[in-house]
Amino acid sequence: MRIEEDCIGKLAIDDKALYGINSLRAAKNFPISNEKLNPLLVESLLQIKKAAAQVNREAGTLSDKKANAIVAACNQLLLGRYANAFIAPAIQGSAGTSANMNVNEVVAHLAERLFPGIKIHPNDDVNQSQSTNDTFPTAGKMAMLKKLPLLLKTVSDLIDSLNGKSVEFKDAVKVGRTQLQDAVPTTYGNSFRAYASMFKRDLTRLSDTQNVLSEVNLGATAIGTSINTSAHYQEAIVPTLNAVSQLKLRQAEDLIDATQNCDAEVVFSSAMKALAVDLSKFSNDLRLLSSGPQAGLAELHLPAKQAGSSIMPAKVNPVIPEVVNQVAFEVIGNDTTVTLAAEGGQLELNAFEPIMFRDILASETYLTRAISTLVTNCVSGIQVDQNRCLSNVEHSAVTATVLSPYLGYVKTTSIVKQAVSEGRTVRSLLMEQHLLTPALIDRLLSPANLTGQQQPASQESVSNQ
Amino acid sequence: MRIEEDCIGKLAIDDKALYGINSLRAAKNFPISNEKLNPLLVESLLQIKKAAAQVNREAGTLSDKKANAIVAACNQLLLGRYANAFIAPAIQGSAGTSANMNVNEVVAHLAERLFPGIKIHPNDDVNQSQSTNDTFPTAGKMAMLKKLPLLLKTVSDLIDSLNGKSVEFKDAVKVGRTQLQDAVPTTYGNSFRAYASMFKRDLTRLSDTQNVLSEVNLGATAIGTSINTSAHYQEAIVPTLNAVSQLKLRQAEDLIDATQNCDAEVVFSSAMKALAVDLSKFSNDLRLLSSGPQAGLAELHLPAKQAGSSIMPAKVNPVIPEVVNQVAFEVIGNDTTVTLAAEGGQLELNAFEPIMFRDILASETYLTRAISTLVTNCVSGIQVDQNRCLSNVEHSAVTATVLSPYLGYVKTTSIVKQAVSEGRTVRSLLMEQHLLTPALIDRLLSPANLTGQQQPASQESVSNQ
Amino acid sequence: MRIEEDCIGKLAIDDKALYGINSLRAAKNFPISNEKLNPLLVESLLQIKKAAAQVNREAGTLSDKKANAIVAACNQLLLGRYANAFIAPAIQGSAGTSANMNVNEVVAHLAERLFPGIKIHPNDDVNQSQSTNDTFPTAGKMAMLKKLPLLLKTVSDLIDSLNGKSVEFKDAVKVGRTQLQDAVPTTYGNSFRAYASMFKRDLTRLSDTQNVLSEVNLGATAIGTSINTSAHYQEAIVPTLNAVSQLKLRQAEDLIDATQNCDAEVVFSSAMKALAVDLSKFSNDLRLLSSGPQAGLAELHLPAKQAGSSIMPAKVNPVIPEVVNQVAFEVIGNDTTVTLAAEGGQLELNAFEPIMFRDILASETYLTRAISTLVTNCVSGIQVDQNRCLSNVEHSAVTATVLSPYLGYVKTTSIVKQAVSEGRTVRSLLMEQHLLTPALIDRLLSPANLTGQQQPASQESVSNQ
Amino acid sequence: MRIEEDCIGKLAIDDKALYGINSLRAAKNFPISNEKLNPLLVESLLQIKKAAAQVNREAGTLSDKKANAIVAACNQLLLGRYANAFIAPAIQGSAGTSANMNVNEVVAHLAERLFPGIKIHPNDDVNQSQSTNDTFPTAGKMAMLKKLPLLLKTVSDLIDSLNGKSVEFKDAVKVGRTQLQDAVPTTYGNSFRAYASMFKRDLTRLSDTQNVLSEVNLGATAIGTSINTSAHYQEAIVPTLNAVSQLKLRQAEDLIDATQNCDAEVVFSSAMKALAVDLSKFSNDLRLLSSGPQAGLAELHLPAKQAGSSIMPAKVNPVIPEVVNQVAFEVIGNDTTVTLAAEGGQLELNAFEPIMFRDILASETYLTRAISTLVTNCVSGIQVDQNRCLSNVEHSAVTATVLSPYLGYVKTTSIVKQAVSEGRTVRSLLMEQHLLTPALIDRLLSPANLTGQQQPASQESVSNQ
Repeated sequence: MRIEEDCIGKLAIDDKALYGINSLRAAKNFPISNEKLNPLLVESLLQIKKAAAQVNREAGTLSDKKANAIVAACNQLLLGRYANAFIAPAIQGSAGTSANMNVNEVVAHLAERLFPGIKIHPNDDVNQSQSTNDTFPTAGKMAMLKKLPLLLKTVSDLIDSLNGKSVEFKDAVKVGRTQLQDAVPTTYGNSFRAYASMFKRDLTRLSDTQNVLSEVNLGATAIGTSINTSAHYQEAIVPTLNAVSQLKLRQAEDLIDATQNCDAEVVFSSAMKALAVDLSKFSNDLRLLSSGPQAGLAELHLPAKQAGSSIMPAKVNPVIPEVVNQVAFEVIGNDTTVTLAAEGGQLELNAFEPIMFRDILASETYLTRAISTLVTNCVSGIQVDQNRCLSNVEHSAVTATVLSPYLGYVKTTSIVKQAVSEGRTVRSLLMEQHLLTPALIDRLLSPANLTGQQQPASQESVSNQ
Repeated sequence: MRIEEDCIGKLAIDDKALYGINSLRAAKNFPISNEKLNPLLVESLLQIKKAAAQVNREAGTLSDKKANAIVAACNQLLLGRYANAFIAPAIQGSAGTSANMNVNEVVAHLAERLFPGIKIHPNDDVNQSQSTNDTFPTAGKMAMLKKLPLLLKTVSDLIDSLNGKSVEFKDAVKVGRTQLQDAVPTTYGNSFRAYASMFKRDLTRLSDTQNVLSEVNLGATAIGTSINTSAHYQEAIVPTLNAVSQLKLRQAEDLIDATQNCDAEVVFSSAMKALAVDLSKFSNDLRLLSSGPQAGLAELHLPAKQAGSSIMPAKVNPVIPEVVNQVAFEVIGNDTTVTLAAEGGQLELNAFEPIMFRDILASETYLTRAISTLVTNCVSGIQVDQNRCLSNVEHSAVTATVLSPYLGYVKTTSIVKQAVSEGRTVRSLLMEQHLLTPALIDRLLSPANLTGQQQPASQESVSNQ
Repeated sequence: MRIEEDCIGKLAIDDKALYGINSLRAAKNFPISNEKLNPLLVESLLQIKKAAAQVNREAGTLSDKKANAIVAACNQLLLGRYANAFIAPAIQGSAGTSANMNVNEVVAHLAERLFPGIKIHPNDDVNQSQSTNDTFPTAGKMAMLKKLPLLLKTVSDLIDSLNGKSVEFKDAVKVGRTQLQDAVPTTYGNSFRAYASMFKRDLTRLSDTQNVLSEVNLGATAIGTSINTSAHYQEAIVPTLNAVSQLKLRQAEDLIDATQNCDAEVVFSSAMKALAVDLSKFSNDLRLLSSGPQAGLAELHLPAKQAGSSIMPAKVNPVIPEVVNQVAFEVIGNDTTVTLAAEGGQLELNAFEPIMFRDILASETYLTRAISTLVTNCVSGIQVDQNRCLSNVEHSAVTATVLSPYLGYVKTTSIVKQAVSEGRTVRSLLMEQHLLTPALIDRLLSPANLTGQQQPASQESVSNQ
Repeated sequence: MRIEEDCIGKLAIDDKALYGINSLRAAKNFPISNEKLNPLLVESLLQIKKAAAQVNREAGTLSDKKANAIVAACNQLLLGRYANAFIAPAIQGSAGTSANMNVNEVVAHLAERLFPGIKIHPNDDVNQSQSTNDTFPTAGKMAMLKKLPLLLKTVSDLIDSLNGKSVEFKDAVKVGRTQLQDAVPTTYGNSFRAYASMFKRDLTRLSDTQNVLSEVNLGATAIGTSINTSAHYQEAIVPTLNAVSQLKLRQAEDLIDATQNCDAEVVFSSAMKALAVDLSKFSNDLRLLSSGPQAGLAELHLPAKQAGSSIMPAKVNPVIPEVVNQVAFEVIGNDTTVTLAAEGGQLELNAFEPIMFRDILASETYLTRAISTLVTNCVSGIQVDQNRCLSNVEHSAVTATVLSPYLGYVKTTSIVKQAVSEGRTVRSLLMEQHLLTPALIDRLLSPANLTGQQQPASQESVSNQ
């Protein structure tokens, strides 16, 4: 055991441990969940340490030897080595100090091991020109940005899959339902294109957040006054970090503001919430339209993915949409947490970034994985029961609305009521009552006319004048 | 009393009433709150009716006489006459049918009164080429858009006021606090500029939502298949409505999608939520920084607006920020409601738009008025107690961080601890211990250097190698 | 105009106005919504003023003449006279000071008018022994309590109505659905009894909150130290208020705690949220089970309450459950607001009670009215389509589960799969394959056995050993 | 590899694996998070399997040999062996089928291994008389109940610690602050007793939920009709399970209701939310009252637990309250998720129990651990800076309110304004102006009188008549 000391006192630490006293105190102080710091958060902090060492060397505020040692240690750690040295819990107090110091300590200790004889101080050297208050928020946004492309990719896959289904189902006429009541005809082509259109907006919104998340406060140090940084560091740190991380970050213009306000997190979480709402609505629709197999709507067949019951033989459930719903609920709950944490910020800093980062990164991961299983295990294999759809259209009165411009709302109402009460079709009543010519009836009740697939035309015999 | 009839049955209605059977049924069915339809929602529906009558006349599907009568009635109603004919409750079932039919009925009845002898049918004539499912969502977005400029204006006023304060307070050095603990110095100029920077992003975000809200589904009719519309109507209705309303709406490309999904509402509500979070954080800061007058931070003085207590003489409270906090909480709660309502949409329609519109329009109004009173009754009159601020800086150890690059983190730590425990200033300890030259001490501890108002410079005597 | 003065300065007030300078300042400072103080909140404050005057007279701290004048004024106002003198907005800063002072001022002015020559001071006399910080929270809880009996009554009516339906539908066999997939048979008698059982728990929970809400901090004055109260006042004020208000309030044991913490409000709002969740689930079920009329489940018929569409003739929507859903969403949103407001309390007081009271009282009213329309306009008239229900049972494989104990899960699975794929009934396959005796088949597939209405019996021929 | 088959098809499974095809499909279908089923959920399911085997044996529906094998397997697994056989993800579709089948499969396979030659079927034998729809909800509540005693214990510890502090600080006079403004005097004894009083209500509320959570639907099987259970099983299963688990469960009276409604979960989550709100308020207060060390309120000293900054030497932050705040936000977010999941239930089952259980169990754990660190690392070591507190009382005008009954509100207001503007004490102004006798001034301004620690007395010289 070695003894380390901080402003609180002394602590014995395992000789082999790369972490130091700050890390160990954090592990003891915050035994909330068993979840450690997100690996992408650690990776991003390491990239910041590496970039800072390079820039501080250029600025002449860090010796070549120290800088090289720090960079070498960061490189080792960025390969994923010694990952269990990062013991700071995901949910932690102190606005990320423990996360930042855990990384500072591990880098310092490893650098000293790699270059025996050199002395690297976690604060003076590894953390030089930095503060938790700029490195941690910057790393948080970097981690979010790193997860984003895969999320965008899966949303894009979902859109592609839905568009494919839209083409596949373009002739599948179905009853359109508003407020769950039979309304007017449409097609499943229309339905799936509409889902694709909805998710396209999510794709755009999420993609737009990249710009929001790319604005970082690195260089702000403690509160945005850039205390303890050199002029060269201010100029070079973000470009150097971009070179190290392959991201396209930019330094915020107002570093005071950027250090204390978390609206970027609120906005990103809101964009994920909007996606979650859309996913939940879509999943609800899928579950409803595939209800049955006999005593439900049963117009869609979802791929059977697993036995649905321990007691009911051969039951199959819409398990994929069900898990998507639950992920949506979790993401919406996480958005509540982010909202509260952002609102709770005070004065020059928001101390509650750790829980925001945890929840936002979790939401990103859950959404990505949920959509991925949704595409692969559900959407791509959806089939329409065309017979059932057609039968529904024919046995309902949904074709009647198209008659209103010819017969008026009142007369059409009486036809529909008669059709429903006598179990007759609208067509047969029209023929029987000689209200319109057979040719006009045919044209009006054709699927293309009913489902809006032919251009709307000037009505030929408007009578309601 | 006159008798009207619908598909449900007959109902007696006051002879003088401009509304009809659908409106009266709604009033009876939905006695939830005493709140009627938002006047801007009614106005927007009237503008749609007027535009539709014009376009239907051009399309030849509505006679000139009928169209003229409808337009004339709309014009009267748009002047605000007969406002109490709109009896449909704000919180209503049926996805807005009651709102739309209330307007259809009032227009039809008034048109018949204005042009005795003419017969105008609420559905066949006033509602021609329309459905509740496209007029109501369109009117909802129109109402939101109409309220937006004033909200943007007040946010802009707030930013101006904050920027003014930032200039006024640019030399007011203060203790920067992170996690409520004394951190490093800054100025109230920095603080108020940071608030302005934060609200600038809100302004941009809210302004961007105009584009989102401008996409409407008018022309979709029942479910987006444009059933019962003419080709001319499809082309002309939105441009004509823009001429009538002076808005810049555009028709959605995918009308099926636009009729069933409410992510625009979710996104707009989220943008207001982000503003609410920022307003709440700002109000929390104001209340904290003006706490006292003796036993608090008391660095800021807010304008005294009213006696603060029924029992404690001369007490004055931060009543304006307090009401802003509460509005923020209400807006965040409304966002929860909007989220649930959007998630609850099913198949070809979301039946829960009435509550979304009510809550979003309420949030817009509350935010606008809260910010307005915040600017006028609070921000514009804020004063800094410069003596107290300076005393706080001098009697705290916040100046010490700037020494770290020269003395190292460990040595600086011991100086701070000594200063705190002995009640001494950092400067006096530095002089006594001859750790740095007096000139360097002066430069380092100068307000400009401490608060980041001078450009960061290369450090002259880096010793930590 | 008369001139009034407070610690802020002077203000001109209409000579006829019963309110005073504090009230007028509030109206100017908080122009957020157009909603005034809830009348029950005003009534409760008046009852407190009346009780306090009586008790202060008894304590000898208020002269008989003054006390009588105050009581007389309160009596007039409690009859509802001069209601428009209460101009303080519902959403207000300052923790209710404006509400309390509005009442103090109106009572003082009216007392002076009623007894010319007497001088009544709003603070020294009307507010004697009180503070906003005890009167306002007490009045808030009183208002909640006053609204509660009607809410309990409507929930109780709902339970009665559901129980009636349960008896009415006890033989209506239907397909039970889990995860929207056909599961095992049940009856609508079971379904409606289950809804009743659910709401019974809500009734109990809400009823239990009466105890929570009855604990008040009256006597705490400013922060719970009871400053400026007499010993007699402490003893007598709550019993006297109970006599005046006919409520059963009790004074909190720890007045410091009771003045600063709002968990009672959180708990009451949560109980209403639980009811909202249950109402929303029930409404969702009703809307789903009545979907159709042809292309949906259509097992239930809800009473038709209004024409459902401006464009689709004879369409009828489940408008009552739809409005109940929306009220549920609003109540859940209000709970978010209450949560944030309660969390935001600081030190000796929560300044955000006004928004809590507004939202909680709104939730109570909305729930009461929504349930009332639900009972009257929906539940009481629900009908079951027994033919459709029976047909669904017969044409689905939901009867198969009962065979598992006799045939095993694997064999039963194959029978179900065959039945579904060949469109056969389970019964016909059993008969054909001679797997069980006809008598056992009859007994197993009898509705009583399938729906659990006969006591479970020892199985006669268990073969899975 | 062995091949297993279900109604979907065949799958190859590692020969050594104790889990089966249902478990493996779940792992593939739901790759959302890396979190597996909560161990207490698995344990509870195992206890149900064990109890069911015993009861089924007694009922004669399961042979002794099979029952013994199942019980033996359960016993092994209950010791924690083969824990990695439980591969079903925490977030899963299908309402817990995967969880239940994972346990059924592992028990069956292990039983066959332990007793070579015997055939145990996961559905027919292990799951006999059960359904996912009664075992999973029952196990969920069992897991919640098992976690509850430790949560209750830590809340109780917190109360004890606060009560201890209340006694310790009973003479520590301080400024009471309402709306963050100096109000009237109190003591830290009062403050900490008030916190204890608040948490006592949480303790009661949480303790009361045990009764709610103890009502289970075991015996309901698929939807509450108890299909496929024997009369003996219905009578004996819950008592036997209580014997196995040492819990005090009771079977719900209405099993249909108990199978489909999740208000128990909503209620339990709400109770935890109320605790979270209280914890957050308390943490906010601690952070505010310990703000400083120089430029804040600095009346309380929290134990220093770790270095507070990577850049600011000797800075110490209130890290423990900060982590408690974040846990509170997470719990409130989880409550949103639970609300949405409960609202989403449909017809005879709620499919979203997996996410409810995950979030509720997480909230329980987080709260327990957060409170534990709060007690140990913060509350127990809090110190009051009595000099600072007294100085604050003396230099503020908080003593003035006590004068109002003697001097009237108006005169007292002028004294306070003079004191504040001239920086004088209230006492000195009183003496100077000869407004009261020195003896009365002494009595009125005594700490005991000011802080409510002496019984309120009849006022001696009431002059306001």
